[in-house]
Amino acid sequence: MTQAELFEEANKKYTADFQKGDLALPPARKVAVIVCMDARLDPARALGLEEGDAHVIRNAGGRASDALRSVIISQRLLGTREIVVVHHSDCGMLTFNDEVLRGIIKKETGHLADQFSFLPFSDLEESVKEDVKFLKNSPYVLDVPITGYIYDVKTGSINKVK
Amino acid sequence: MTQAELFEEANKKYTADFQKGDLALPPARKVAVIVCMDARLDPARALGLEEGDAHVIRNAGGRASDALRSVIISQRLLGTREIVVVHHSDCGMLTFNDEVLRGIIKKETGHLADQFSFLPFSDLEESVKEDVKFLKNSPYVLDVPITGYIYDVKTGSINKVK
Repeated sequence: MTQAELFEEANKKYTADFQKGDLALPPARKVAVIVCMDARLDPARALGLEEGDAHVIRNAGGRASDALRSVIISQRLLGTREIVVVHHSDCGMLTFNDEVLRGIIKKETGHLADQFSFLPFSDLEESVKEDVKFLKNSPYVLDVPITGYIYDVKTGSINKVK
Repeated sequence: MTQAELFEEANKKYTADFQKGDLALPPARKVAVIVCMDARLDPARALGLEEGDAHVIRNAGGRASDALRSVIISQRLLGTREIVVVHHSDCGMLTFNDEVLRGIIKKETGHLADQFSFLPFSDLEESVKEDVKFLKNSPYVLDVPITGYIYDVKTGSINKVK
């Protein structure tokens, strides 16, 4: 069975007692969260989000620059007025650099990958600070509260980066 | 109170009985899901995902081209071997085009936004097909099962796009 088929099975259970069909399109809590795609991190459970509450933007590393298109749409068209950035311990982005990954791609596919910037980082706390700063400095992002956290995959806790 | 402060409160409850501190970095179910950032869609609940199972990549529209960097990292460095794309009914991406949003940004910020492609779409089923095709045709993406769905925000159900 593919994972897709397993998703279809699981979704039948989800819809059996589904009672959230009347939620509005704009997020009720007017917040966008930018979180790493990491499998161990479930932003809804870890941050207490219900369906309808928040935009959840996720990518490798939870990088803000890669989320800018989505943040603009979230703020300008759908009214969010706060941003929370969450990176996490033991992140895959700490384990490589652009040159290494470009080399792997060249070897495995035969194609150059010089056009990609994979946005890895070597310091977790700095990566959060950098992403908060990126958003605060962008002329395309509204002047709203922006808070950065590191999620600890061992304990499930979020710790604010000051 | 900011949403960030509310997240800190909710996170205390999450960590109180946290028992998932030993999960591995690579996703256990070897799958990456690309899903819209929409607030009404909770991929973990809707697809039956537990912490540790899957990479979850989310952006405005659930667009595959915007997820390519993350997909490459997911496959080449962290071993995922299946992709599932999920767009949804009543998506905000159906409500505007690049020209409209660029106009809003210019008016609100004074800055040109011509460098952004916001990736809106006018046909939901076509947008899913387009994104599955994009991934299948990319020389940077492995030849793995790729399935596209439309999530119905009224019923919570996923419906495969063929």
